[in-house]
Amino acid sequence: MSQLHVSIVGGSGYTGGELIRLLLFHPNVELTQVASGSRAGQYVHSAHPNLRKITSIRFCHPDDLTSCDVLFLCLPHGVSSEAIERYRGLAPRVIDLAGDFRLRSADLYKDWYGETHSAPQLLQEAVYGMPELHRAELSEATLVSGTGCMATAAILGLAPLYRAGVVNTAIPLVVDAKVGSSASGAAPGASSHHPDRSGAVRSFQPTGHRHTAELLQELGQVAGKESGEQLDQIIAFSATAVELVRGVLVTAHVFVKELLDERALWRIYREAYGREPFIRLVKERSGVYRYPEPKILAGSNYCDIGFEYEPKQQRVVVISALDNLMKGAAGNAVQSFNAMCGWDETTGLTFPGLHPV
Amino acid sequence: MSQLHVSIVGGSGYTGGELIRLLLFHPNVELTQVASGSRAGQYVHSAHPNLRKITSIRFCHPDDLTSCDVLFLCLPHGVSSEAIERYRGLAPRVIDLAGDFRLRSADLYKDWYGETHSAPQLLQEAVYGMPELHRAELSEATLVSGTGCMATAAILGLAPLYRAGVVNTAIPLVVDAKVGSSASGAAPGASSHHPDRSGAVRSFQPTGHRHTAELLQELGQVAGKESGEQLDQIIAFSATAVELVRGVLVTAHVFVKELLDERALWRIYREAYGREPFIRLVKERSGVYRYPEPKILAGSNYCDIGFEYEPKQQRVVVISALDNLMKGAAGNAVQSFNAMCGWDETTGLTFPGLHPV
Amino acid sequence: MSQLHVSIVGGSGYTGGELIRLLLFHPNVELTQVASGSRAGQYVHSAHPNLRKITSIRFCHPDDLTSCDVLFLCLPHGVSSEAIERYRGLAPRVIDLAGDFRLRSADLYKDWYGETHSAPQLLQEAVYGMPELHRAELSEATLVSGTGCMATAAILGLAPLYRAGVVNTAIPLVVDAKVGSSASGAAPGASSHHPDRSGAVRSFQPTGHRHTAELLQELGQVAGKESGEQLDQIIAFSATAVELVRGVLVTAHVFVKELLDERALWRIYREAYGREPFIRLVKERSGVYRYPEPKILAGSNYCDIGFEYEPKQQRVVVISALDNLMKGAAGNAVQSFNAMCGWDETTGLTFPGLHPV
Amino acid sequence: MSQLHVSIVGGSGYTGGELIRLLLFHPNVELTQVASGSRAGQYVHSAHPNLRKITSIRFCHPDDLTSCDVLFLCLPHGVSSEAIERYRGLAPRVIDLAGDFRLRSADLYKDWYGETHSAPQLLQEAVYGMPELHRAELSEATLVSGTGCMATAAILGLAPLYRAGVVNTAIPLVVDAKVGSSASGAAPGASSHHPDRSGAVRSFQPTGHRHTAELLQELGQVAGKESGEQLDQIIAFSATAVELVRGVLVTAHVFVKELLDERALWRIYREAYGREPFIRLVKERSGVYRYPEPKILAGSNYCDIGFEYEPKQQRVVVISALDNLMKGAAGNAVQSFNAMCGWDETTGLTFPGLHPV
Repeated sequence: MSQLHVSIVGGSGYTGGELIRLLLFHPNVELTQVASGSRAGQYVHSAHPNLRKITSIRFCHPDDLTSCDVLFLCLPHGVSSEAIERYRGLAPRVIDLAGDFRLRSADLYKDWYGETHSAPQLLQEAVYGMPELHRAELSEATLVSGTGCMATAAILGLAPLYRAGVVNTAIPLVVDAKVGSSASGAAPGASSHHPDRSGAVRSFQPTGHRHTAELLQELGQVAGKESGEQLDQIIAFSATAVELVRGVLVTAHVFVKELLDERALWRIYREAYGREPFIRLVKERSGVYRYPEPKILAGSNYCDIGFEYEPKQQRVVVISALDNLMKGAAGNAVQSFNAMCGWDETTGLTFPGLHPV
Repeated sequence: MSQLHVSIVGGSGYTGGELIRLLLFHPNVELTQVASGSRAGQYVHSAHPNLRKITSIRFCHPDDLTSCDVLFLCLPHGVSSEAIERYRGLAPRVIDLAGDFRLRSADLYKDWYGETHSAPQLLQEAVYGMPELHRAELSEATLVSGTGCMATAAILGLAPLYRAGVVNTAIPLVVDAKVGSSASGAAPGASSHHPDRSGAVRSFQPTGHRHTAELLQELGQVAGKESGEQLDQIIAFSATAVELVRGVLVTAHVFVKELLDERALWRIYREAYGREPFIRLVKERSGVYRYPEPKILAGSNYCDIGFEYEPKQQRVVVISALDNLMKGAAGNAVQSFNAMCGWDETTGLTFPGLHPV
Repeated sequence: MSQLHVSIVGGSGYTGGELIRLLLFHPNVELTQVASGSRAGQYVHSAHPNLRKITSIRFCHPDDLTSCDVLFLCLPHGVSSEAIERYRGLAPRVIDLAGDFRLRSADLYKDWYGETHSAPQLLQEAVYGMPELHRAELSEATLVSGTGCMATAAILGLAPLYRAGVVNTAIPLVVDAKVGSSASGAAPGASSHHPDRSGAVRSFQPTGHRHTAELLQELGQVAGKESGEQLDQIIAFSATAVELVRGVLVTAHVFVKELLDERALWRIYREAYGREPFIRLVKERSGVYRYPEPKILAGSNYCDIGFEYEPKQQRVVVISALDNLMKGAAGNAVQSFNAMCGWDETTGLTFPGLHPV
Repeated sequence: MSQLHVSIVGGSGYTGGELIRLLLFHPNVELTQVASGSRAGQYVHSAHPNLRKITSIRFCHPDDLTSCDVLFLCLPHGVSSEAIERYRGLAPRVIDLAGDFRLRSADLYKDWYGETHSAPQLLQEAVYGMPELHRAELSEATLVSGTGCMATAAILGLAPLYRAGVVNTAIPLVVDAKVGSSASGAAPGASSHHPDRSGAVRSFQPTGHRHTAELLQELGQVAGKESGEQLDQIIAFSATAVELVRGVLVTAHVFVKELLDERALWRIYREAYGREPFIRLVKERSGVYRYPEPKILAGSNYCDIGFEYEPKQQRVVVISALDNLMKGAAGNAVQSFNAMCGWDETTGLTFPGLHPV
């Protein structure tokens, strides 16, 4: 197979670095250009020291990008939507990893991002890049959005219950997300200063987190809402930073309509994910790794999902874990890209993670 | 003032070690004996290396304990209630840091501990050793129980809202607790093996955690229930182990009955805790430490409490932090002991915690 | 190419787990059996949770091992040499990752291991499995030993200077090794209990470390000694455990005979390692990763080497880093295996490591 | 006793924060002013969140400092020596925690700091603030310098051997220091960005570290050199950053002139430090904490010292540990201040450190 020419804009950040790593080893890809405004002219490994001796590519300036088959955007929020026409002019297929094109509704966007979208005409066209929920649409898509790292863990963990129609939506859904420091990006600052960030268990967004909007949209959709509508349930989403570089763990509390048993829940999850290459159901009776654990997912594209059921309360606790830079960002984008291209979705994504680590 | 003679049973564990440290520096105490079945005859600093050169006490055997004024029990769950008569024979005042005497109702105990209590006749007599809620009872108490570390953070964070009567108890209360590794004690095992425990974000008790019972009892009581009754609300409590040695952070999601504003919430908290020596309200507009953060509490007896209010959802997120071995165990026990004795509750507990750490 | 049948004995430990991971993805290998005395009958992923859904192999009992093309031994020290005849009867080529066959001299073994070797007749035959120094011998070898993780970092870092003949051996060589917790293996114990091991900077073997013997042998050999002789220099080797799961950093202080300059040192290292696939010279003027750093090597087979020269003291500080389970154990063993088989040494070992991590 | 009026300049950094904490609880001190150029007008707890509710002091501007009894300077290197006359005009006794006045010789300063000293006339007058070596001088001193954190650990660990005259100074002394992130100060930057700094084992100054100069001066002096002369031995000092916020561990390799035995070494150390309040000899046969370990010293003023002797090599490995912000900076400065004032040196410094932590 001849290789596709793929380029990246915004390649000096953490998500960009992971994309470079994945695409350098992707058998169907020739990584053509990697642009960075701040590091143009420097070797890629000056920003990504793990790529020393792996590649001798240098960052180009974004103005020097040429046409390619697929263009990945790893830009700060708001930047990609402002320049989206230029980027779509460079490549027939664009995958944007920022938050700009995750929502189908300009109103929902305004509610949660607090600003008017700068390219609302593209919102319906863009596809939410989660192959597990949007596989069919991806094959036709010309504009694909990435997905929020915590939103991905929560949506993948919860979607089977919403699709099965068992959730009591009269009771709020509480989603408590724990996340590592790499989710805040590569720019140093007071909150990421090691003596202060090390060992932190730090509530940083107890209310109002933007990823909530992705849950309202995607869980609404699997629950049967039309595109552009949202779930009719209170979602109480809170995020806490923990001592970890890579990783997200989501603990979600769902109340179900009727008394279920554990076997019914297993059936719901197995039907939803039995053939998904990157979802593993993790729920064991013994051992240390009985539930999903993000640290053993570092570098892998898995989303591990488990649950526990408390019949007296009709409560399901859903636990899901992933690597925020992989299944929560770059890995998931490559999986979507594989789906777009009609390839095996695992192409270039087979690294299983390490243990111990 | 002449010093009280105080002894400790079960002094080789982490809670025991903290008690020894605190009592050695307590001006009104002479630490008479420290018993340990497994380490009898060894120097105390063989188990607690921070006490090298601080004390030359050796552990005695539990059988060799003599009478004293106050006896602290730091024994594994279930052990203290079986031998409670013997220990009460040694000292007119006993403070038990295990879970055995935390609940006033033998039925509630059976529901959550799964076994029949071995000394139910003492349950009504024992005082839940939380000075903020039981100060008056402590002065008369002859049997005081310690409090669960996560329960303490949750109860102290939530009690003002329940006492103020603003909580909508028709909606479940979700309490998500994050906890460090010292809460599992000093005995090595597979789940505490460093290569596996390091960097963990590990759901270890998503449902059925025993500390829930303490919330049902204590929040019920501040909400106006009789002793022995419990709160009439679903409490969804989940615990996750995070990378940290000492510390608990609780994130609790409460829905309120009526539309409040932030000033009303501030008023509720200030009224509840304005004069409490070990509770600090932490809620700042800027900076890294805007909400409670357990790491800067290591070694201190503070419980830091903050909140965020989301009016659209009528949701209050309550965030509370403490050191599980201090305000969550030994420090809180010393504070209760001070209250029992009529001393300033801060005696021997003035260490403020470190920053950075 | 038809695949070789490869089996592993001692597959439930950390080194065994890494070998399983590497061999499952090795294109020229069919992983036939994985034996474990303690876990026979259980799924491999019960010990190695990162391999969930990757393989459905179960551990067999060591007694049930059948013949294969290559057998890897991941047994505790002393066990493999006692049963080596049995294992050599199962496979024409055996690779032993324990310390048993690292030394060519039974006397040197006795000096450092404090016991008489149980199969001294095999010591001259075994090959020290370090392709960078023993590539030619590996192609003919039937018994290959693994290499000590800290010894590997030290030897690879220092060999070019010894081979170039620039070292002043009248002055002791000081080697200070820092190592993560996985190097102590998968068995829990007091020294690996998380509350005690977390954040440790713990001198655990300031004198007398066995890896010293590997340096005496291998640096002696590159310096021109005969096989079985050792370097005629004092080696002061100390090991300190640091907060890290995977990784070794060695800082070695070498004094040189004559006044060198930095370019001469660069030339020595480039000549030694210019074509080595797994050695990278890391020495940059700016940036955070100016010297070798173990954390970005986790999961990779690289040994990164850097140095700094202080002309006033004629001192070279050599800094080398690797992942103790990869280039320090399983990865290096697979590289040796590739060399034995005449394959590209990077086969199955291309994972570059992660950043950030 | 009436309290001394004490002020601090440069109070917003980590060393300043520790000084504030210590002086607030010091019984003989009234903390009068804390100056900070960058935070003037803000509450002290805005920079030091552990001091919430402990003090309501606000930072003043350095220009607003008034006279006091003792002034502590916690300024960046080079700043205090330029303004030293002004500060000495404010207080009869000044304690400077920067590097400016650590060396007695302007030549030695120039050799290691690479610049000409701006107040060389004060160098002979200033006292190196290490009570263990300069107790008598401190009582008369009007200008006291702090000591380098790694230098302190190394000097205290090695001084007894140099004073006893047993060191073979023909062989270089190798000092390998491991240090936590707080030693680099409170200002964020690329090298302290958590995703990059977390889990690091990072050689940051393999040669040329300025603390070497303190060793040359102080070890020279205990070995009998005149003030202003330095040790006639090569000191090979290297520093490595490890995963830890507070703490220094020094591993030093000394070769001795004659064959000693362990009892002789014990005797040397006991004679040197038997009555020192903040030095503990740590060398045990069993247990996890057999050698000095910095983590249990966080917040304490101890320097723990151990050693191991290898007779075949006539090598002593000296291991010393301390908290870089306490015995390595603020705690040591308070101890020096106590010595200056003729008080018990432990006043305000009795916190023993925590375990586990």
